[in-house]
Amino acid sequence: MNDVTPLVASNARVKEARKLSRRSVRTERRLFLADGPKAVEGALSIDGCVVEVFATPAAFEQYADLLASAVVSVVDERALASLSDSVSPAGVVALCHHIDAPLEHVVTASPRLLVICADVRDPGNAGNVIRTADAAGADGIVLAGQSVDAYNPKTVRSTVGSLFHLPLAVERDPAIAVRAAQARGLTVLAADGAGDVDLFEADLSGPTAWLFGNEAWGLPDELARLADQRVAIPIHGRAESLNLSTAAAVCLYASARAQRA
Amino acid sequence: MNDVTPLVASNARVKEARKLSRRSVRTERRLFLADGPKAVEGALSIDGCVVEVFATPAAFEQYADLLASAVVSVVDERALASLSDSVSPAGVVALCHHIDAPLEHVVTASPRLLVICADVRDPGNAGNVIRTADAAGADGIVLAGQSVDAYNPKTVRSTVGSLFHLPLAVERDPAIAVRAAQARGLTVLAADGAGDVDLFEADLSGPTAWLFGNEAWGLPDELARLADQRVAIPIHGRAESLNLSTAAAVCLYASARAQRA
Repeated sequence: MNDVTPLVASNARVKEARKLSRRSVRTERRLFLADGPKAVEGALSIDGCVVEVFATPAAFEQYADLLASAVVSVVDERALASLSDSVSPAGVVALCHHIDAPLEHVVTASPRLLVICADVRDPGNAGNVIRTADAAGADGIVLAGQSVDAYNPKTVRSTVGSLFHLPLAVERDPAIAVRAAQARGLTVLAADGAGDVDLFEADLSGPTAWLFGNEAWGLPDELARLADQRVAIPIHGRAESLNLSTAAAVCLYASARAQRA
Repeated sequence: MNDVTPLVASNARVKEARKLSRRSVRTERRLFLADGPKAVEGALSIDGCVVEVFATPAAFEQYADLLASAVVSVVDERALASLSDSVSPAGVVALCHHIDAPLEHVVTASPRLLVICADVRDPGNAGNVIRTADAAGADGIVLAGQSVDAYNPKTVRSTVGSLFHLPLAVERDPAIAVRAAQARGLTVLAADGAGDVDLFEADLSGPTAWLFGNEAWGLPDELARLADQRVAIPIHGRAESLNLSTAAAVCLYASARAQRA
């Protein structure tokens, strides 16, 4: 390590990587940055995903085991910080190929628990739903409609590595995702505060796809009507609703519990 | 309305209110700002809580019913924006007295479901836990230890009015809150990823206080050991843990379900 001169922020490769903070560049190149050791570990667990890892000299030593088989470019602190949107970067950022799979691949893998997000807009919410889906043992996730970019740095960070743990599809039309799930025998449940079925009275034991809507306006009626049931989380107090990722957690764990009972 | 000249940002009362963006000023004066119609509605539902409501001329008309019995100061858009930390302010901000009650009041009200947060640091997480506690029908919440200020604008905003829906106590020492709950016959359950009891195998039917720790480091061992049980949410996938407010939602709804079965 001592004889390697760290790359600086003006280095051509670092500059190119930095452009990936823009969604348009990420989409065009089908590349993104995964920031922090959990994300880098997740990315390295997928064959062919990582192009290279940028690491500060200190992080290169600290994460020596993690980076043992990776292509690593040692960069200085300033160059690393320019690749991270974190307030206190952990010192490792992986340049990765996009990992979303075609919708059919995600749906035809016979999932028992699938998540379809329509128009989730907040990067932190989207990341949190992916993390929770992973924890609850979901088999895949579809970001549909006008959802936030799965490769947004905030989304990637809030998945804490889970982005790399379960199959992900991106589908412009949420109705196509719903119909694909139904065609594979999944019951599609729309999470809908105005739904007529109580979450804890619903039969959740079979293969299920949960459909979640936007943070502010929920699910458009024409989309919710495609679902097999519209399911509401009971509100016992005076709150009017739950935050999207919170609601998703309650629904997904109710399913996990019923399916594993 | 047409003959009222809106107050401007340099108005003395507006300037004084603006100082409440600082925690030290909020704590000293025991005042805070509640931003947006849901928060203002919640504040107005508590006798003596609201000192005055600042509203733009447009919001004063739009929320005429809500503000019918309130003391309202009409302010211009710029003055209102200076009182709001929201990117797109809704036009109404209430100047409120602090509403936290002594710990004994919250605990002696014979709660069946109580939430104790120790060292929750992120304002959005804290607000989200309060909102979820309300939705799950909790009877009170204690922000303990080095928790974020309950009156932080981001916390207030993310409760979406729930801050005003259930009794809140602030207690510097989390151990005191735990012991107070136990003294009133509540079973204290520590949410702990390393806990030895599976959430879905625990008996949650009795009066319960949930103890949640910090976002990054969880519960200190000496605090978790005071709890009657250390309960873990099962992780079925490859995620290492759940986000704090997500975990709280799963635990609180598991309790609500068991208590109401």
